[in-house]
Amino acid sequence: MNNPVNTMNGAEALVQTLIDSGVDTCFANPGTSEMHFVAALDKIGGMRCVLGLFEGVVTGAADGYYRMADKPAVTLLHLGPGLGNGLANLHNARKAHSGVVNVIGEHATYHIEHDAPLTADIEGIARPVSHWVRTGQSSTDIAQLGAEAVAQASTYPGRIASLILPANTAWEASAGPVAPVTPDTPKQVSDDTIKQIAQVLRSGEPAAMIMTGHCLRETPLATASKIAQKTNVTLLGQTSNARLERGAGRTPLTCVPYAVEAALKTLSGYKHIICVGAKAPVAFFAYPDKPSCLWPADCQVHTLCTIDQDSAAALEALACELGADKLSALRQPRVENPLPNQNALDNKSIAAIIAHMLPENAIVADEGITVSRNMPEPTAGSAPHDWLQICGGSIGLGFPMATGAAVACPDRPVVAIQADGSGMYTLQALWTQARENLNVTTILLSNRAYAILKHELRNVGANAGTVATDMMELNRPELDWVAMAKGMGVPAVKVSDTKTFIRELKAALESDGPYLIEAVF
Amino acid sequence: MNNPVNTMNGAEALVQTLIDSGVDTCFANPGTSEMHFVAALDKIGGMRCVLGLFEGVVTGAADGYYRMADKPAVTLLHLGPGLGNGLANLHNARKAHSGVVNVIGEHATYHIEHDAPLTADIEGIARPVSHWVRTGQSSTDIAQLGAEAVAQASTYPGRIASLILPANTAWEASAGPVAPVTPDTPKQVSDDTIKQIAQVLRSGEPAAMIMTGHCLRETPLATASKIAQKTNVTLLGQTSNARLERGAGRTPLTCVPYAVEAALKTLSGYKHIICVGAKAPVAFFAYPDKPSCLWPADCQVHTLCTIDQDSAAALEALACELGADKLSALRQPRVENPLPNQNALDNKSIAAIIAHMLPENAIVADEGITVSRNMPEPTAGSAPHDWLQICGGSIGLGFPMATGAAVACPDRPVVAIQADGSGMYTLQALWTQARENLNVTTILLSNRAYAILKHELRNVGANAGTVATDMMELNRPELDWVAMAKGMGVPAVKVSDTKTFIRELKAALESDGPYLIEAVF
Repeated sequence: MNNPVNTMNGAEALVQTLIDSGVDTCFANPGTSEMHFVAALDKIGGMRCVLGLFEGVVTGAADGYYRMADKPAVTLLHLGPGLGNGLANLHNARKAHSGVVNVIGEHATYHIEHDAPLTADIEGIARPVSHWVRTGQSSTDIAQLGAEAVAQASTYPGRIASLILPANTAWEASAGPVAPVTPDTPKQVSDDTIKQIAQVLRSGEPAAMIMTGHCLRETPLATASKIAQKTNVTLLGQTSNARLERGAGRTPLTCVPYAVEAALKTLSGYKHIICVGAKAPVAFFAYPDKPSCLWPADCQVHTLCTIDQDSAAALEALACELGADKLSALRQPRVENPLPNQNALDNKSIAAIIAHMLPENAIVADEGITVSRNMPEPTAGSAPHDWLQICGGSIGLGFPMATGAAVACPDRPVVAIQADGSGMYTLQALWTQARENLNVTTILLSNRAYAILKHELRNVGANAGTVATDMMELNRPELDWVAMAKGMGVPAVKVSDTKTFIRELKAALESDGPYLIEAVF
Repeated sequence: MNNPVNTMNGAEALVQTLIDSGVDTCFANPGTSEMHFVAALDKIGGMRCVLGLFEGVVTGAADGYYRMADKPAVTLLHLGPGLGNGLANLHNARKAHSGVVNVIGEHATYHIEHDAPLTADIEGIARPVSHWVRTGQSSTDIAQLGAEAVAQASTYPGRIASLILPANTAWEASAGPVAPVTPDTPKQVSDDTIKQIAQVLRSGEPAAMIMTGHCLRETPLATASKIAQKTNVTLLGQTSNARLERGAGRTPLTCVPYAVEAALKTLSGYKHIICVGAKAPVAFFAYPDKPSCLWPADCQVHTLCTIDQDSAAALEALACELGADKLSALRQPRVENPLPNQNALDNKSIAAIIAHMLPENAIVADEGITVSRNMPEPTAGSAPHDWLQICGGSIGLGFPMATGAAVACPDRPVVAIQADGSGMYTLQALWTQARENLNVTTILLSNRAYAILKHELRNVGANAGTVATDMMELNRPELDWVAMAKGMGVPAVKVSDTKTFIRELKAALESDGPYLIEAVF
C-alpha cells in the first residue's frame, strides 16, 4: 500500500495543514474555483464551515471570531471580486489587529492569461488590507504556504494573511500536509524603555496612559491600575478598541472621546502621554480649523510599547520597576443601575436598560455609532462583559462581528448594539445567525438616519440643503427591520416604549438562538 | 463686485465642472469626508443625487446607468473601505466597458500621515479596477482633475476613472470651475485590417464572427447581418454582454454558451473566428481535463476590431468592402409565444411567461444565472428590448444594474430577472428603487440554492458531501423575499404556479414604481 499522504490533492493537503495548525473554523462564500477546497473540507473533517451570503459577512465574522477565540479562522472567498466584497471588513480587522487567514480562489495558473470575466489582479486587491500576500504556484507548495499563512495570522497581535489558491493547485496531486509553522513570539519591550517610562511617571507631572490591544484584558488592566495607584497616571483607552474586558470586577477605564472638542478636553492639562499599544491620539477626521493631533502643545508623547510588542509583559515590568506590583488593583464594584422610569425610548433610556440587563459574561458587539456614545457610563458597573468596537471606522462590521464572536464563544450571550444605517451594509449576517442558531440578541437602533452625518455636516462647516438632508435621512421609505429579519429567519419584534423593550429584551436573552429587537425612537 | 467664481470652494468648482461636462447623475453613499461635496450638490444644483444604502448598490447602479445613458454617472464613495464595498461592481463595470467617474473621499492631505482609523491605501484599492486614478493635491487642481475624469470615463467604449478627493481640497477655496475636456474619439480600424478580414470571409471557409460591445446595438447588428448574408459568416454574441438590442425587428443573435461542452459544440467546424470587440472565446473557469480555449485546433482567430476600436464603423467599412452594404438585414419577426399550459413553475414555464409578456422597449437586467440560460430562445421574438448581463462574473450586480438603468431611462420598463443567491449580495438596492419610485419589476427566482455551484462541483470533478452541500443550499432557513422587499418599501408577492405568476406580472408591469415577484419553484 502506498503512503496515503500521496493520494491527497493540494486542497486536501492545505485543509489538513490548516487543521494541524489549530485552525478549525472557516467562514465561507465559495464559488466554482473553490469547489475542491470545499470538497476537501468534507473529506478531511475537523473544520467547521459557516456560510455567509455575502463576503463582508465572512470577513467581519472572522474578525469577531479572532477577537474572542484568540486564534485565526479561515475565510474562503471567490477570486478578486469576492475578496473585494470582503475588503471593508478586512480593513476593520487590520485596524483591530485581528488575525485572519484569507483563502482566495483564483483561476488555474494556466487560465489566468486568457483574461476570463472573473480575472482580476487579486494580489493588488489584497495588498492594501494584508500584511502577507502569496499566490500558490503548484499543488505541492500550497500546503506549506497554508502553514505560513496561519503563522503570519497568529503573529502577535494578529495579522491579515492572504493566500491565493489557483484552482489547479487545489485539484492537482500534493506531497501531503506539512508541519505547522510556529509564529514569532511577541516582541518584548527593552529594559531601557521600561526605565525611561518609569522615570517619566516618577516625575509627578500630570500623565495619561493611552491603551489598546491585549492590555485591555482583565489582568494587564489590573496591572495598569497598580501603576496608576503608585504614580497617579490616568488610565485611558483608545477611542475604539477591538476588545475591552470591563464591568464589575474589572479595572474601570474611560476611553478618549470621538468628538474632537471632547477629546481635547479629556487630554488637556497632561504633560505626558504614554502610549501602550495605542498611537498618539489623533482626530478621526480632519475638520476645518480643528487640529489633527489631540494632545496639548506642551505635552510630551512617549511610547511604552507599540501594538506588536507584548503590552501585558511591558506593564508587568513597569509595575515591578515602580514597585507597584504588590499593590491591589482598583476594581469596579457591581452597580445595579435602576431601570428608567420614563416611557419614551431615547439614547439615555436605551442605555440604562441595556446596562441593567446585560447578562453575566456577555459579549457586546457595538456598532451603535452615535447611540453607543451614551453606553460606557451606565454599563461601567454592569455584570462583567467584553466590549467589541469597530476599529477601522468602516460601518457594516456589527452584524458580522456579532456572528463571529458567537461562533467563537457558543456558551456566552452576544448582545449586538446595532445602528440602522450601518446595519444595512451587511444585514445578510442575520441569515447566518439563524442558520447556525447563534445566541445573538440584536438591539437595532432605528433612528432612520445616518445620525452621525448630521453631526459631521455641522462639524465640517457645511450647510444641509435638500440634497444633503436626503443623504442622511433613511425615512423615505422607512426600513422595517422586523420584516427584513424575519425574511432571513431571525425572530424579531418592534418596540417603541421602555416597558415593551424591557419585556422583549428579557425574553430574547432567555431564549436560545438569534433575536432582533427593533427599538424605534 | 468680485468674480463670483472665486467664492467657490473646491467641491463646488468640481461639481460645477462635472455638470458642465454633461454629468447630471450621482449615485452616492457619502460619509463625513464627503460632506462638502454633498453640500456643493445643494448649492450648485443640476445634479440628481441618488442614495444607495451600500456602495455595491452605488457602483452597480452607475454601471447600469452608463449602459443605457451612454454617458457616465458619478459615484460618491467614503474613503478606501467605501470604495472597497463598491469594488466588485466596479470590476463588473470594467469588464462591461462601462464608463464611471468615482469620486472617493479621503482625509485632508495633512491628516493622512496620522493614520486615523479610516486611513487606507485608496489608490492601491482603486488601481485594480480603474483605468485612471488620481488624487487631488489642492482645491485649485481638483476641478481640472474632475474634467479629466469625465473625459477618461467617456473615452470609447467607457473607462473607470477614480478621483480621490481629500477633504481639504473640497473645502478650501478654488479658482472656479474649468472647461470640459473632450475625450479622444474612438480608434478606427485600418483599411488593411478591413481588407484582410474581407479576404478571410471571401475564402468561403466556415467562419464565425464573435461580437460584443457597441456593435450589439440595432444598427451595427443589421450591418453585420448584411455581411453574413453576403459571406455566410455565422454571427455570434460573446457569452455575456453589456447590452444587446434584440427582439422583434432586430437582427437575431445567438451567444456562445457558458458551459464548456456546449461552447465547444457551437464553435466546432469553424476554420475562422473573427473577433469584433470580443476576445477569442475562452472558458469562464478552468476545469480539470477541459480546455481553456474554446475554438477548434485548426481554426484561425482574427481580429476585426478590439473593444476600444469603433466596431460599428468597422462593420460598415467591412460591409462596403464586401459589397454587402446595399443588402437588407435579416430582422427577427415578432413571435407571440404561447403561455405555458402547465401549472408548475419551472425554468421553462417562467421563461415562456416572460417571453410572452415582456413589454415593448423593456430593459432586461439579467442576473438569473442558471435560469437565464433558458431565456434567449423563447424571448428571441418578443417585443423589442435591451438585454443587460453581468460581464465580470461577480454576482450582486442585478438589483443595482436594474436600479441604474431605471434612473437612466425613466420612460422604459425595467424587468429584473434575479436569482436568489446573487440577489442577497446587494438587496439594499430595493430600498433605492422604492425611494426613487423606479419602474422596476423584479422576478426573483427562488430556487433556494447557489444552483450554479451544483453544476460546477460536478464540472470540477469534486464530490458533494455535507459541507459542500451546505455551501450550495440556501434553504436553512428559507429566505422570504416578500418580507425582505416589504422591509425596504418595495411591494412584493410570492407565487408558485403559472396562473398566479401571470396575473401578478401583468399587475406589476401595469403599475408604476418597483414591484417584486418571488417565483418559488
